[in-house]
Amino acid sequence: MIKAGIIGATGYAGQELVRLITQHPNAEIVTLTSHSYAGKDYDEVYSNYSHKNYICEEEDIEKMADICDVIFLALPHGVASKKINNNILNKTKVIDLGADFRLQDIDVYEKWYTTHYSKDILSEAVYGLCEINRDKIKGRRIVGNPGCYTTCSILSLYPLVKEKMIDLSSIIIDAKSGATGAGRGLSLSNHYCELNESVKAYKIANHRHTPEIEEQLSYAAGDQVVLSFTPHLIPMDRGILATCYAKLNGKYTYSDIRKAYEKYYKDEYFIRLTKEGTFPETKWVKGSNFVDIGFTVDERTGRVIVIGAIDNLFKGAAGQAVQNMNILFGLDEKTGLDYIPVFPA
Amino acid sequence: MIKAGIIGATGYAGQELVRLITQHPNAEIVTLTSHSYAGKDYDEVYSNYSHKNYICEEEDIEKMADICDVIFLALPHGVASKKINNNILNKTKVIDLGADFRLQDIDVYEKWYTTHYSKDILSEAVYGLCEINRDKIKGRRIVGNPGCYTTCSILSLYPLVKEKMIDLSSIIIDAKSGATGAGRGLSLSNHYCELNESVKAYKIANHRHTPEIEEQLSYAAGDQVVLSFTPHLIPMDRGILATCYAKLNGKYTYSDIRKAYEKYYKDEYFIRLTKEGTFPETKWVKGSNFVDIGFTVDERTGRVIVIGAIDNLFKGAAGQAVQNMNILFGLDEKTGLDYIPVFPA
Amino acid sequence: MIKAGIIGATGYAGQELVRLITQHPNAEIVTLTSHSYAGKDYDEVYSNYSHKNYICEEEDIEKMADICDVIFLALPHGVASKKINNNILNKTKVIDLGADFRLQDIDVYEKWYTTHYSKDILSEAVYGLCEINRDKIKGRRIVGNPGCYTTCSILSLYPLVKEKMIDLSSIIIDAKSGATGAGRGLSLSNHYCELNESVKAYKIANHRHTPEIEEQLSYAAGDQVVLSFTPHLIPMDRGILATCYAKLNGKYTYSDIRKAYEKYYKDEYFIRLTKEGTFPETKWVKGSNFVDIGFTVDERTGRVIVIGAIDNLFKGAAGQAVQNMNILFGLDEKTGLDYIPVFPA
Amino acid sequence: MIKAGIIGATGYAGQELVRLITQHPNAEIVTLTSHSYAGKDYDEVYSNYSHKNYICEEEDIEKMADICDVIFLALPHGVASKKINNNILNKTKVIDLGADFRLQDIDVYEKWYTTHYSKDILSEAVYGLCEINRDKIKGRRIVGNPGCYTTCSILSLYPLVKEKMIDLSSIIIDAKSGATGAGRGLSLSNHYCELNESVKAYKIANHRHTPEIEEQLSYAAGDQVVLSFTPHLIPMDRGILATCYAKLNGKYTYSDIRKAYEKYYKDEYFIRLTKEGTFPETKWVKGSNFVDIGFTVDERTGRVIVIGAIDNLFKGAAGQAVQNMNILFGLDEKTGLDYIPVFPA
Repeated sequence: MIKAGIIGATGYAGQELVRLITQHPNAEIVTLTSHSYAGKDYDEVYSNYSHKNYICEEEDIEKMADICDVIFLALPHGVASKKINNNILNKTKVIDLGADFRLQDIDVYEKWYTTHYSKDILSEAVYGLCEINRDKIKGRRIVGNPGCYTTCSILSLYPLVKEKMIDLSSIIIDAKSGATGAGRGLSLSNHYCELNESVKAYKIANHRHTPEIEEQLSYAAGDQVVLSFTPHLIPMDRGILATCYAKLNGKYTYSDIRKAYEKYYKDEYFIRLTKEGTFPETKWVKGSNFVDIGFTVDERTGRVIVIGAIDNLFKGAAGQAVQNMNILFGLDEKTGLDYIPVFPA
Repeated sequence: MIKAGIIGATGYAGQELVRLITQHPNAEIVTLTSHSYAGKDYDEVYSNYSHKNYICEEEDIEKMADICDVIFLALPHGVASKKINNNILNKTKVIDLGADFRLQDIDVYEKWYTTHYSKDILSEAVYGLCEINRDKIKGRRIVGNPGCYTTCSILSLYPLVKEKMIDLSSIIIDAKSGATGAGRGLSLSNHYCELNESVKAYKIANHRHTPEIEEQLSYAAGDQVVLSFTPHLIPMDRGILATCYAKLNGKYTYSDIRKAYEKYYKDEYFIRLTKEGTFPETKWVKGSNFVDIGFTVDERTGRVIVIGAIDNLFKGAAGQAVQNMNILFGLDEKTGLDYIPVFPA
Repeated sequence: MIKAGIIGATGYAGQELVRLITQHPNAEIVTLTSHSYAGKDYDEVYSNYSHKNYICEEEDIEKMADICDVIFLALPHGVASKKINNNILNKTKVIDLGADFRLQDIDVYEKWYTTHYSKDILSEAVYGLCEINRDKIKGRRIVGNPGCYTTCSILSLYPLVKEKMIDLSSIIIDAKSGATGAGRGLSLSNHYCELNESVKAYKIANHRHTPEIEEQLSYAAGDQVVLSFTPHLIPMDRGILATCYAKLNGKYTYSDIRKAYEKYYKDEYFIRLTKEGTFPETKWVKGSNFVDIGFTVDERTGRVIVIGAIDNLFKGAAGQAVQNMNILFGLDEKTGLDYIPVFPA
Repeated sequence: MIKAGIIGATGYAGQELVRLITQHPNAEIVTLTSHSYAGKDYDEVYSNYSHKNYICEEEDIEKMADICDVIFLALPHGVASKKINNNILNKTKVIDLGADFRLQDIDVYEKWYTTHYSKDILSEAVYGLCEINRDKIKGRRIVGNPGCYTTCSILSLYPLVKEKMIDLSSIIIDAKSGATGAGRGLSLSNHYCELNESVKAYKIANHRHTPEIEEQLSYAAGDQVVLSFTPHLIPMDRGILATCYAKLNGKYTYSDIRKAYEKYYKDEYFIRLTKEGTFPETKWVKGSNFVDIGFTVDERTGRVIVIGAIDNLFKGAAGQAVQNMNILFGLDEKTGLDYIPVFPA
């Protein structure tokens, strides 16, 4: 059994991780921590665990490193980079669900986020987008688990970028997320009556997942990608839908594009290409690690429109973190993750 | 592996059963049928299964009985009683998720439902409320899987009735259900814009789960129970909350009542009693087989108020059906059912 | 034009009042106040007012009394009783949307709420349930505007109590409310992801609207009423549904009961009795001042079940406050309130 | 009083029209028709009207024309073009809420819709987008009331197109609509449990509002506009949010763009430009005729992002129809339409 520790276990992503690891056949939680709820029973924070005996502990990452095979961090950005050091990585694997180890370009990180406190370690971190970076993840000591919007956006566009089928300057990603994406913290914008029965865009042209998408797509393209990314808040709990637009570099047909997607994804269990003429909906991936992708060619405008859907807490956070753990420890990637989406839910 | 067949696999309860059996470590689906979608791929009906290869078959229960260890029926009332006969039961076990094998009093069945076509078999059917009838279920050939409202209502009141702590003529159950309870069939009352942002009672004083609750509580009481049951439709997908009221037969304290509940439920894995002063909410059981129960004594009125919560598609239908299968086949009851509730979802 | 001042204009009930008074043909807002947002434009707090020029002022009730014909207070309980005094009432009418002037029994108030600071004034306050107390409201200086649950509950049961058709000791009110009832303040229970897709009871056997319902029904009965009242939180914005149960004092038919309701309500514009066999749903009253009431006789149990529905912010708060203003100033009660319910919404 | 007739009064847009005309101070409904419900009381179809006495009549447009000053049609496309003829227009004004009189290019109409049966009349129809075509609407006999998505999209982009500030080949409109947009007809995609808690795109690259937006923006540009339009279905009742992307034709600042919007809209009561840094949300226009518009310049990509929001049933259908009626009959445009958005709702 892999001994896992979870830091930040009382946020929504942390809780989803607690659920997935608890149900994982080859892993167990040896300690879970929460700054806000230290000392409390976990089921006082999440009553769905009233049949379990988890307790929220105060975090001591050094001690955790002694007893854990892997530590997951689900913390606000800027915190993980202060906690992780070489000593810890010598003792345990680290999978960070925050933003601190996702961007390799430190200037970009510090421009969009804050000061980075472990630049030395950053270079050995791998971007944990499993379907793309699987081989690089094996053997690493630290994984930067991708963001929710970014997972959905990059996987939706990757084959087109890789195959140079689209104009890199023309990419627009219009994304829609359920409310869990904003976390459990209280704010007026999360108040039921303010969020319910309404839709809005937010952080227009300045959301922090933008540089993360751009960096990864630039690697794939071998060229600089600058794009528009607009997130929207939808009155639902879970799910991200990314509607992606790009100019085609030629007169590609649906079949041409399908071939590109199949080239990269045909053996990927967690990526499901929808049939021609059908498109992803978030309900069909909810409660699962699947990424559904569909696309169409708009001949009138010369654009391809690609639609991707994930469960933001699962494949967009905790599920992918477990998938990374499975890779790091040599398990089948599906282990503990092979859930059929729950519907209706 | 237990070979399972599912008749009526394209309704909501049927689909939940497909999901649970697919993920069950000791069972597999050998055939699933749908009258409406016969011949179609199952994922055309439910896209969450696009990574699976299930096909909707036309039902032939005689042939199914030859290849299945157990057949689940998820059909409208009145249909199962026509299909089941001694020949089938000689070849396979049957778990009926409909109403036809729940009520032992045939007159009550025919008054509230319709003509019953297999009265001879009815007497050997067992009411599959696992926590109460476990010992009777073992060895049976046919199980009448309880209704959703009834599961929640009976389990909420059972210890009080059994211990004769409440006035049997004073029981009122005010229940609230999510929209999946009404099934996938189209009607104006299920239209998104008609159901959303509203609440209503329906089938007031004449809902068919009333006699089912009464029959079981009468067995428990050793006396006739007649009660008021009012279901309500709530704008959410899953979940039932039953708020139950009854006059106490004496000056019982919270502690007295707690003892009664613990007497019957302390070893029941799937029944979780909430702590004093806290009460069930449907979100804490969603996606699980748990029944959460809490109660309080209202000294001002001499009433006890008991609140129970379940996931109507899980413990209220497919989960309990699997639990019955586990009992019938001698498996640990938790097998394939030990899910932590999914939250937020 | 009636000059109106609104204290506490940035809560949900306050905002609804701002909307109704703004659209009222015979009234206008001369000042609106907010402790939290004093000095800010009102549309920074509620963007639906971006075409208006309201400003949140710091409250000075003495000065307001000089310029206002009527002052509405929408404040937490215990605050209004400190602010209102004889000097103010000599200058202006007061309609209090809080709890401080609803209960005449001061001991009951102080037991369920807090210390009362203007007991001398309490005795001249009238309980502003317009359909019942219309004649008493005329000419008063101060009105205690009823609570949301209480408006719906009392009006649902009043004719039965008044006509002594039900056993007073048998009354149970199981009420369901949308989330606006809990106000705009932040709490985990109002967080979108915590409230959405779930239902729960709260303040079981101890909600503060209980004594208010009991006091008014006791007046109607000429006898002491003690009852059970259980509120539930429903995932929707607006609306209250009260499902009321009581033992009938005799073999009354639907027709007998209908006559009782028509005796009291047949000329009440804002009370609509549903047709036999149909029942209220909150969607049919949303955005209006209507109270819909329906009922049935359950012969099996000897109970009558009455269902009432209102919009909690409209008839349950701001609309009834305006109705009280109309009565106080001799206007037709419907003035500024004759809205058809908005659907679907 | 303007005598109004409504054909197709039992659809969602029709019902909203019934509500607005009923509450209009200078108009009254003299007849309302419904094919499906002819002969029934209107409140059997919509219980929010139980205090009214409307009856659904069978349609006879010739007779209606004799008694009505204006006839509103809220019908599926292809029906109105068969009903309207010169004889009717000689007797009454017609405002068609369907698609038949919106597109002037008959070939485009017949390509995207169906055969058109009154081509002779089409040329005198005016596109009833009030803020743009006000002067052309006056004096006309027939108005094609704009579609919901189109109203929001065109008004969001009009000043930029008119002022030639954007590259016409670069326009992408990603729109999100509540479920009322799909009407009251039953389909699996409107079933509560299928639509709730999910988001999807539909009619990708082939939605019929596309040519309507293109035709109007082409008029404004004096040049051909071809664009991408993608509608999405959101789990809420009302509201449309259009997120519009376009390449700027130069280094325009926020202030430059603001000036363009103010040039066209500064005196438009129903268009509200949000403050710099704030953006529309559908909740702030719900239940009103307002169009909220906000925008930002994304310097990184050289794009302008414009966001518009309307209530699809109000400004996107019935409200704009009434606004057109007000123009046709020389009333102040705000008459009967000056509602503050209802919140929370």
